[in-house]
Amino acid sequence: MTVSKPTRGWRRMALALGIAAPVAAFAPPALAEVSAESQYIFNTFSFLIHGVLVMFMAAGFAMLESGLVRKKNTAAICLKNIALYSLAGLMFYLIGYTIMYPGDGGWIVNGIFGNLDLFYDPSAAETALIAAGDKATPEQLKAVVDSGYSVPSDWFFQMVFVATAASIVSGTVAERIKIWPFLIFVVVLTAIIYPIQASWVWGGGWLDAMGFSDFAGSTLVHSTGGWAALAGAILLGSRKGKYTADGKVTPMPGANLPLATLGTFILWFGWFGFNGGSQLALGSAADAAAMSIVYVNTNVAAAAGVVIAMLVTQMRYGKIDLTMALNGAIGGLVAITAGPDVDAHWKAIVVGGIGGGLVVFAVPMFDKFRIDDVVGALSAHLVAGIWGTLAVGIFGGGSFFTQLIGAVAIGIFVFVASFIVWYILKATVGIRADEESEMNGLDIAEVGMEAYPEFGQAS
Amino acid sequence: MTVSKPTRGWRRMALALGIAAPVAAFAPPALAEVSAESQYIFNTFSFLIHGVLVMFMAAGFAMLESGLVRKKNTAAICLKNIALYSLAGLMFYLIGYTIMYPGDGGWIVNGIFGNLDLFYDPSAAETALIAAGDKATPEQLKAVVDSGYSVPSDWFFQMVFVATAASIVSGTVAERIKIWPFLIFVVVLTAIIYPIQASWVWGGGWLDAMGFSDFAGSTLVHSTGGWAALAGAILLGSRKGKYTADGKVTPMPGANLPLATLGTFILWFGWFGFNGGSQLALGSAADAAAMSIVYVNTNVAAAAGVVIAMLVTQMRYGKIDLTMALNGAIGGLVAITAGPDVDAHWKAIVVGGIGGGLVVFAVPMFDKFRIDDVVGALSAHLVAGIWGTLAVGIFGGGSFFTQLIGAVAIGIFVFVASFIVWYILKATVGIRADEESEMNGLDIAEVGMEAYPEFGQAS
Amino acid sequence: MTVSKPTRGWRRMALALGIAAPVAAFAPPALAEVSAESQYIFNTFSFLIHGVLVMFMAAGFAMLESGLVRKKNTAAICLKNIALYSLAGLMFYLIGYTIMYPGDGGWIVNGIFGNLDLFYDPSAAETALIAAGDKATPEQLKAVVDSGYSVPSDWFFQMVFVATAASIVSGTVAERIKIWPFLIFVVVLTAIIYPIQASWVWGGGWLDAMGFSDFAGSTLVHSTGGWAALAGAILLGSRKGKYTADGKVTPMPGANLPLATLGTFILWFGWFGFNGGSQLALGSAADAAAMSIVYVNTNVAAAAGVVIAMLVTQMRYGKIDLTMALNGAIGGLVAITAGPDVDAHWKAIVVGGIGGGLVVFAVPMFDKFRIDDVVGALSAHLVAGIWGTLAVGIFGGGSFFTQLIGAVAIGIFVFVASFIVWYILKATVGIRADEESEMNGLDIAEVGMEAYPEFGQAS
Repeated sequence: MTVSKPTRGWRRMALALGIAAPVAAFAPPALAEVSAESQYIFNTFSFLIHGVLVMFMAAGFAMLESGLVRKKNTAAICLKNIALYSLAGLMFYLIGYTIMYPGDGGWIVNGIFGNLDLFYDPSAAETALIAAGDKATPEQLKAVVDSGYSVPSDWFFQMVFVATAASIVSGTVAERIKIWPFLIFVVVLTAIIYPIQASWVWGGGWLDAMGFSDFAGSTLVHSTGGWAALAGAILLGSRKGKYTADGKVTPMPGANLPLATLGTFILWFGWFGFNGGSQLALGSAADAAAMSIVYVNTNVAAAAGVVIAMLVTQMRYGKIDLTMALNGAIGGLVAITAGPDVDAHWKAIVVGGIGGGLVVFAVPMFDKFRIDDVVGALSAHLVAGIWGTLAVGIFGGGSFFTQLIGAVAIGIFVFVASFIVWYILKATVGIRADEESEMNGLDIAEVGMEAYPEFGQAS
Repeated sequence: MTVSKPTRGWRRMALALGIAAPVAAFAPPALAEVSAESQYIFNTFSFLIHGVLVMFMAAGFAMLESGLVRKKNTAAICLKNIALYSLAGLMFYLIGYTIMYPGDGGWIVNGIFGNLDLFYDPSAAETALIAAGDKATPEQLKAVVDSGYSVPSDWFFQMVFVATAASIVSGTVAERIKIWPFLIFVVVLTAIIYPIQASWVWGGGWLDAMGFSDFAGSTLVHSTGGWAALAGAILLGSRKGKYTADGKVTPMPGANLPLATLGTFILWFGWFGFNGGSQLALGSAADAAAMSIVYVNTNVAAAAGVVIAMLVTQMRYGKIDLTMALNGAIGGLVAITAGPDVDAHWKAIVVGGIGGGLVVFAVPMFDKFRIDDVVGALSAHLVAGIWGTLAVGIFGGGSFFTQLIGAVAIGIFVFVASFIVWYILKATVGIRADEESEMNGLDIAEVGMEAYPEFGQAS
Repeated sequence: MTVSKPTRGWRRMALALGIAAPVAAFAPPALAEVSAESQYIFNTFSFLIHGVLVMFMAAGFAMLESGLVRKKNTAAICLKNIALYSLAGLMFYLIGYTIMYPGDGGWIVNGIFGNLDLFYDPSAAETALIAAGDKATPEQLKAVVDSGYSVPSDWFFQMVFVATAASIVSGTVAERIKIWPFLIFVVVLTAIIYPIQASWVWGGGWLDAMGFSDFAGSTLVHSTGGWAALAGAILLGSRKGKYTADGKVTPMPGANLPLATLGTFILWFGWFGFNGGSQLALGSAADAAAMSIVYVNTNVAAAAGVVIAMLVTQMRYGKIDLTMALNGAIGGLVAITAGPDVDAHWKAIVVGGIGGGLVVFAVPMFDKFRIDDVVGALSAHLVAGIWGTLAVGIFGGGSFFTQLIGAVAIGIFVFVASFIVWYILKATVGIRADEESEMNGLDIAEVGMEAYPEFGQAS
């Protein structure tokens, strides 16, 4: 392959016109043109790099939520975000992963519940191969390579998805929840609730057997986070003064919109890992091509979400609204997440555009029901997640009815289980900060420091 | 390859001293040591990962500009940035890509204009291979692998470049342009103006045939963005009060310099994708080595841009200037972008250092001409972009004269085309916010929300 | 490999149950299942991508420090961060790299000091192969591939580590140091001090020969940065008013905690490159598996650092403390950096948890000694770095005694060398800003601009 000062034009045109030789002498291809060990490396590296992109979404949520809460609750939301990401990883290590992936030897009850082999660790085959070093035998290598990818790379990739689900919750219940009870909920969500429902699909459980399809988690991650948040928001109640007795909604605008914008861009950036990595393999041309299609669909869906959200707000309210545009991007991303492998990009644009548009209608709807969602996460993750899941039954290869069953079943399970946990927490340690703490802000009350101590208040 | 607790020192020294075996038994190498399918995967993955890095530059521009505008125009610039990135992607999907890459079957007029097959989609060969799954035939695989990389991965990589060009414009015309007219300009820029000039080089058009060389787009992306911004700035006029009647320049410092710093770091981070990915291939040792050289040159050029900008400002003004240092980094990055494959790193340092130094002289120059460039984008992208393009004729393999022709031809085309579009917009919908909106800030007038509603104004 | 709409569950279960064929027909494996050229590409790409992640840590430090200094010193810390990253790269190019890696032909004195071939450049073999293009001979290819990875990719990866060490210093000495003297120290640190001690281990010097093990640099990078900072902090003295005559410590809280949170997340994100890339190879299944283990250990160690820091502050002070949680993450990350290849994840949790807990005790300890560390870098990098280095002698394969020798030897060398350099600077140009500059803030005095000019002060 020519590398000495190629121009983009030259190489592309030469290939297209048949002037240049193809990139390599191409013997009659076998379907194993890529060696098994190379496949293993490609697949593993895809998990790692895409997993790192998803990990960075934790920063995206932290910034989005920091920007959308009020000044006095900013340090608290920062703390919740780094704490929840940490706890999610530890809980998924301790118990979540083995519940989610029971394998064939685990304690598995009709595909409903996984196993309880605590303390996930790398596979014995991998540690043996690594320990053997130069003296590794072909059998040791084969034992590793046969699995198709490194087990810890998969753990890492799945772990960041659990963390994402937990991140969704923190935004909705912000500005009034006590930190420790919130974190206890995160522990239960990431150790038990998320893994159980995820095992039904990605762990090979009953929904997977039915043909329910959720490529990267519109339902399993985003709606799950949304249902857990909804249960919390209902039991927690709205912020003081948010809804007046005469039915008005008091705007409580976010304190730092550039940070919210940054957070949205980080989420968008990380979503290429979320959806692209969910191809789960990179070891063949077919996988690489499919992954590329996923990337493009992810991008155009988000773009359409922004544009439709902007147009709808302009038409409905006579102004563009920055936070709606940001949530439009997220709505578009969430919507395409169930089926980013759709075969024509215009379909992704339709799915994402509707996802973004739904956000604009869902935000006032939740306000109407007096469900106080500080950052709009219910609209962007729960509503758009349901839509995206159903959309696979319209535009993708799935059955609409099966998609509906999956969305409903997981919704009921997660909502009920979360409601019970929130309820117990409310009845025991309490979940809501006292009125004085809420007035003065959680930063002083719970974190003991202000986020912006030197910046004066607007008069 | 030993992996059990290697130290960096051990492996490196062992290889250098010939104690250790090379990484694998090395049979007499054929030039196709990497299978065609592996090459396809490497090339595709390079496009995807590097494309994601470039995508994140949209966040970099958003933060840089958020930091450099005044408080009252911050939400508006955030909105413009996420909207322009979205529109660029959709326009490039609808029409831009097929104009830019006419291929051999398109409507192509003497290499001047591409084709008009609207609605770009994955190749038929790729969708067939993916649909075939396990039943794929060798012929189906070959049809895909022969292209060298996945078509959507290339689309993705090219799309983020168009978005970058549009991002450059928003900074220059900030703080006084109305949002919708600005976005209409972005539509035309990304759907038509950018693709036409890019097709002249990267699409295999007349400038490519002449030997004009622009590795990653000093001219095609950065100067193009700059020329479009210059046309807009001229027709738009300067901000109220920026230039006084007696020839003074009123400083209007940016509101949030840590965000501007973050934005610059994000741009630098993303630039490794911009330049590194523009190697366009990773499927051979030669490509990997060439890509590595590109990375190093990119970094040292930016570093030199910072240092020279700092030294020049210290000498000229007796103080270091943070925004000059930041723009120095960008100037260095833009300058090396035309030829980051230069064969000795000191040349990259010279090119980047001059790029950074030019910024310090160009900023007051534009002010002298009363061209009001809010963030210094004309200096960092247009001026440094021209310099970098010419530098290929000095330090790289290109002809200085051909480089000059390319820079001038594209400059004239983009400036004139942009001027016409801006002029039509000005004459019809108007491009400038009314005086009251400008005084109160575009955030209230156009976005209906403040970026920092709880933060008091400095007295 | 099936790619048409696989569900995660299907593929995983099928493989586990033996229903599906393994990912490729698996011939009796040779240990060179991956071709030498593919290994070269994998290894090189790993250096580049992981290096980019580490590069972004420069942004992480900039944001962490921007958030933890007071408003009036924010522009100065931004400037220092972009300047130090730039200078580190240029110095490592000019001289550092060749000192650090003497090779077998350099001016090397008993493994103590490297060579002085100034102006590092790509290898002749690589430039020859690239220049040859299509006409490359098998011998030219072999000459390149035999090195195992591209030389400039390695330079890039090592360079970002030097920059990290320098970043650590800026936080400790913030808010009172003059910019230019600080930058002169950075020049000496990155050109000479860092490379000398790094050559003792990673360059194959005497500590490597003793068996001292530091996988990614708990000592070589983090403690080194910490020792250099400690020497500076001692000679510089504390900020005015930080310690009162009666032994009290005046809190001087950071101005912008969301930025500090963002910085911590960016550091965490970049650390996967820091530790993962330090596997130094990706060209075999064993390397890919080992790298995956490193990723997981890195994440759980940081998570444990956060959780332990939170619990300890809650117990000691009755409140959670956001900045302690953030520094807990960094302490956990630094601690695991010496041995992220440890074979069971619970060990990483213990190492990281102790690292995070140590931070909570170290911060008041330094205050007790009146060593004024603005951002807590001594606690998070120096203390946790020493702990992590020793932990390899407890949990990893290393000897505790050898680890202790290495930590002490490098500590003494770096502290003494840094002390001398700081001392000379103090005695000549002076290192401390004058009292008025410190009162008014370094932004006005040294950078000539405020970081937040439009934001009013809290009353």
